[in-house]
Amino acid sequence: MPLSIVILAAGQGKRMKSDLPKVLQPLAGRPILSHVLDTAKQFNADAIHIVYGHGGEQVQKALAAEPVKWVLQAEQLGTGHAVAQAMPAIPDDHDVLILYGDVPLVRQPTLQTLLEQCNAKAMGVLTVVLADPTGYGRVVRDNAGNVVRIVEQKDANTKERAIGEINTGLMAVPAASLRKWLAELKNDNSQGEYYLTDIIVMAVRAGMKVNAVIAPTEMEVLGVNDKVQLAQLEGSLRAERARELMINGVTLADPARIDIRGKVTVGRDVFIDVNAVLVGDVELGDRVRIGPNCYLKDCRIAADTEIHPNCVIDRAVVGPRNVIGPFARLRPESVLHGDVHIGNFVEVKKSEIGQGSKANHLTYLGDATVGSKVNVGAGTVTVNYDGVNKHRTEIGDGAFVGSGSMLIAPVKIGPNANTGAGSTITKDAPEGKLTLARARQVTIEGWKRPQKKPKE
Amino acid sequence: MPLSIVILAAGQGKRMKSDLPKVLQPLAGRPILSHVLDTAKQFNADAIHIVYGHGGEQVQKALAAEPVKWVLQAEQLGTGHAVAQAMPAIPDDHDVLILYGDVPLVRQPTLQTLLEQCNAKAMGVLTVVLADPTGYGRVVRDNAGNVVRIVEQKDANTKERAIGEINTGLMAVPAASLRKWLAELKNDNSQGEYYLTDIIVMAVRAGMKVNAVIAPTEMEVLGVNDKVQLAQLEGSLRAERARELMINGVTLADPARIDIRGKVTVGRDVFIDVNAVLVGDVELGDRVRIGPNCYLKDCRIAADTEIHPNCVIDRAVVGPRNVIGPFARLRPESVLHGDVHIGNFVEVKKSEIGQGSKANHLTYLGDATVGSKVNVGAGTVTVNYDGVNKHRTEIGDGAFVGSGSMLIAPVKIGPNANTGAGSTITKDAPEGKLTLARARQVTIEGWKRPQKKPKE
Amino acid sequence: MPLSIVILAAGQGKRMKSDLPKVLQPLAGRPILSHVLDTAKQFNADAIHIVYGHGGEQVQKALAAEPVKWVLQAEQLGTGHAVAQAMPAIPDDHDVLILYGDVPLVRQPTLQTLLEQCNAKAMGVLTVVLADPTGYGRVVRDNAGNVVRIVEQKDANTKERAIGEINTGLMAVPAASLRKWLAELKNDNSQGEYYLTDIIVMAVRAGMKVNAVIAPTEMEVLGVNDKVQLAQLEGSLRAERARELMINGVTLADPARIDIRGKVTVGRDVFIDVNAVLVGDVELGDRVRIGPNCYLKDCRIAADTEIHPNCVIDRAVVGPRNVIGPFARLRPESVLHGDVHIGNFVEVKKSEIGQGSKANHLTYLGDATVGSKVNVGAGTVTVNYDGVNKHRTEIGDGAFVGSGSMLIAPVKIGPNANTGAGSTITKDAPEGKLTLARARQVTIEGWKRPQKKPKE
Repeated sequence: MPLSIVILAAGQGKRMKSDLPKVLQPLAGRPILSHVLDTAKQFNADAIHIVYGHGGEQVQKALAAEPVKWVLQAEQLGTGHAVAQAMPAIPDDHDVLILYGDVPLVRQPTLQTLLEQCNAKAMGVLTVVLADPTGYGRVVRDNAGNVVRIVEQKDANTKERAIGEINTGLMAVPAASLRKWLAELKNDNSQGEYYLTDIIVMAVRAGMKVNAVIAPTEMEVLGVNDKVQLAQLEGSLRAERARELMINGVTLADPARIDIRGKVTVGRDVFIDVNAVLVGDVELGDRVRIGPNCYLKDCRIAADTEIHPNCVIDRAVVGPRNVIGPFARLRPESVLHGDVHIGNFVEVKKSEIGQGSKANHLTYLGDATVGSKVNVGAGTVTVNYDGVNKHRTEIGDGAFVGSGSMLIAPVKIGPNANTGAGSTITKDAPEGKLTLARARQVTIEGWKRPQKKPKE
Repeated sequence: MPLSIVILAAGQGKRMKSDLPKVLQPLAGRPILSHVLDTAKQFNADAIHIVYGHGGEQVQKALAAEPVKWVLQAEQLGTGHAVAQAMPAIPDDHDVLILYGDVPLVRQPTLQTLLEQCNAKAMGVLTVVLADPTGYGRVVRDNAGNVVRIVEQKDANTKERAIGEINTGLMAVPAASLRKWLAELKNDNSQGEYYLTDIIVMAVRAGMKVNAVIAPTEMEVLGVNDKVQLAQLEGSLRAERARELMINGVTLADPARIDIRGKVTVGRDVFIDVNAVLVGDVELGDRVRIGPNCYLKDCRIAADTEIHPNCVIDRAVVGPRNVIGPFARLRPESVLHGDVHIGNFVEVKKSEIGQGSKANHLTYLGDATVGSKVNVGAGTVTVNYDGVNKHRTEIGDGAFVGSGSMLIAPVKIGPNANTGAGSTITKDAPEGKLTLARARQVTIEGWKRPQKKPKE
Repeated sequence: MPLSIVILAAGQGKRMKSDLPKVLQPLAGRPILSHVLDTAKQFNADAIHIVYGHGGEQVQKALAAEPVKWVLQAEQLGTGHAVAQAMPAIPDDHDVLILYGDVPLVRQPTLQTLLEQCNAKAMGVLTVVLADPTGYGRVVRDNAGNVVRIVEQKDANTKERAIGEINTGLMAVPAASLRKWLAELKNDNSQGEYYLTDIIVMAVRAGMKVNAVIAPTEMEVLGVNDKVQLAQLEGSLRAERARELMINGVTLADPARIDIRGKVTVGRDVFIDVNAVLVGDVELGDRVRIGPNCYLKDCRIAADTEIHPNCVIDRAVVGPRNVIGPFARLRPESVLHGDVHIGNFVEVKKSEIGQGSKANHLTYLGDATVGSKVNVGAGTVTVNYDGVNKHRTEIGDGAFVGSGSMLIAPVKIGPNANTGAGSTITKDAPEGKLTLARARQVTIEGWKRPQKKPKE
């Protein structure tokens, strides 16, 4: 059967205490709604409808690139009403899978099983068994195990309250029936809302089979209503992704202290020490070692490179056998070839560093092209900014840049050129020669040290 | 009834293996005794008596500013003896609430309930139910639920050992009765001590009602006897404070990895990444983002400011829309206005930085007044110290300080002045002009690179 | 009885997905096999035999210094076959203790108890009770509690499957009997392997007593088969070592966030904040305080020194009352005397720093000998490398090195000498005088700021 998916994403999420709509709260670095959407996109659905309401403009903007149909729920009149908004665009011969923008961790195989329960004569509901079901709608089954109704907490008798299986709200329903039942929903309840749940009893009355699929874990169906729950889901994802890395052979110093907010691709025998934060697309080659407290975003680190503690790497490409850090920062558009050493308190921005080159101490390389086997002394600065424009520095193969050099860009340091320590280089330094700019050293006779000023 | 509070704080705490008295061991950044005291101060007590003994001088010094009465227990003769030392100063018509300096997490509402059990004809004892009560004094109640005695582990029969409710030692007792019973205590036990607990059976014998209040959690009544327990309480506080932040709308990357050692005030939509340590009074404005591994102490961060990873901020005031770090350090008495950028490997001390100014790389700004829209180049140092005195540097609005500038304070860089990169500026740089101190660049002909020295 | 120990270390560990043999996977900073070996070495054994196979060369190389006998198992034909390879070198009158290279956390006292079960008429097997024993060989005992056989999962009946006690594979067996039984093992099972376990039933048949010793914790007998289990053991060790420190009086901000990969020796009243990583031999004196996110390797920190957040210290000796960091890096062969201050963004390598000296900002001290009471200004670099050779810098007592000084080694700064800020010092600076190298400051008239280039 063709499939339409409806994702309910209109809730405000007051308990989030946030100006951001609930479904845009970040989980593992992206909106919780986009987690649901990614799962939905794994189905070959005709259309994915997102029902929006609160903060709709923000939601649409955040997911602007997504192939979805936007459906406005102008008033918040309940889940049944929300689904109803999407129905005009859904043909009668579709199955409809109903998901929630604030239930982000449901898995595709679980939904697949749910969907398989749905046909012209049957609908599927996703349930879960809780140790403490207090407050949730219990799933009442007959002796044959068929779902006969959902009983809300307040209406449940003692026996029903003892039922641990509860309704999650996720469903798969044939469109024609769904349309009919939604039209028959009543809002004569304390909230004055149209509840989607009420269609279950309609289905039973209509002689339809209601097949319950029990979610394998509570986490899959946990909704996010406040920041405490958000942190719980974050923790659950943290554990799951750490586990995936370990199953793939990565050695983690502590799976409870790694945050993966994106996609990490790993080679063989990778080691990641405590407190790594990996954001976006991160590729780690064979035998890469990441020290404690490193932050890596959208970067590639090639084989046999070691990142020492406390490094920040953002959109850089790091070659093989590099030694980086500690306390190094690699900024966007930096490309480091093989065997490069970038040491402590060194910043590299929008620069290319050639094979075997080193900048080990207290240096800023910005907008630079550095050849191979270059040595950059401590305290060197590529003076790339004149207040309005950025200029490039070129350093040739085998050059030796003396410590404390100020390289006023645009400027070229020739191959195998040396610059004297403490020199401000304003003009090109020719190949193979020593260039310097240095004042004569003098010792002042009769000079006296400053005296302590009297306290005012 | 008027109230006197007695806090027992004379214990040595041998298992702490510390030269610091047990009650001064730090919990969430301050002495465990001061947690108890803060709770005690929430009552409108006539007086709070602290019974001290071991390390008394240190204890009094640490809490010198607190409005308490100090009572010396010269010899450690038991809890009953300790309370007795405070009695001379407590009138007969008072209720007496007895707390312990090493039971820091008890909450005011729990104690309020305990206190309400106390009147001329009744005393209150705080109990708790433990899964494993082995070793503790069990609370024996009669059929009506009244406490009839406390049975110590060694004296308990099989039935009594099965009791999970134990005595915590916290009590609320009318002063006149307490005084009488304390005088009747005996020390004919193996330790030769006067036990406060023994007054419970005296109360029962005297026909007084003993009302037990069960503490809601074990953590509230957990005593701290060694560093393992201290860490447990620290963990409990960590979880609780993280939870409070989340309930207030803060997004925490990991509630298990945030340490709050003081008071944190937050605006809306604050995000705090992993491993933040927040010490003292910390204010975070709306939409402030704190990156991983940041240490913030007694500071204010205004709205929309982002703190990148690995920053240390101590007693600084950071304005709105700032971008700080990574690897930035803001030291005491620093004030940053709006839209300031402080980048990597930059230290700011006792300086004011004006609106929109930037110091993005490898810089030390100390004792400086920096105007608005100033650009400070990489490798700049305010040379504020001559070996004995500190001097100030003033940089006017719109100035452009070239990279590698040494600004020898006292010195002024005029508004819109430029200083050439690599210049040591010893005299004021006039407004709107380029000032520099630079040697002529020369290239040495016939120069040869150093040769590798033979190994000695 | 004389003792031979056999450690089985031939397994490949496919699920590790690693090029490193399983027994060389790192746990708390060293191979898991070396943990087993350390425990084995606590016995006064005649010989320790390590049976190697996969990656044997790597294994032998990694443990080259160890006093063990290497035994090749050329083909992987099962645990019985593996033990058999070692038997030719073991005399009949020995007890044989059989351990596993991938079961690293078993403790000496547990093995001692196991060994005591072994005599001419009895063997010992180590068992453990699991909540979920599914998949493991159950220990079947007779009514007297004697072990009668081990039943594998697939062969177990319902009653046997309910047994929680399982065989760990660790055994103590008299050598003569072991030799005999190993020769009788059959490989007529689905794997075609010779199972050591099968000797248990042989022992029973031979009228020998089989004494089971139940391991006190599951962790002691947990084998490492993948990176998930490796992380579990790492976590277990983390907790255990943190606990040891706390019992010794160390205050830990969070025992879940400290990694000890070696041996830590502590004085009194040491405080270690979150996320310390301690590697190798680390000594911390009385009242040492370690800030958050510090990495310490093979170093000594003397009493009353405070290490601020985010420091990296590797093979350095730090004297008493030092103040280090934040963001400081001390590298190998550095020796700091008392009352030294090393501040932010400062690197010290192979240098000696005298009593009371300070280098507080943005400095590189490499190959330097610094006297006492020296002040090193911000942005100072010891220019120790000329491209091929390293040279030393000597700075005398009481010297004042101006900010931004480039000290071109070899060079000496005399006692009480000053160098002017921004000077490149190429020749020795004499005692007690001011030496500088500085260009004249000029202001350019008629100079105009650069203009924004048009976008290309």
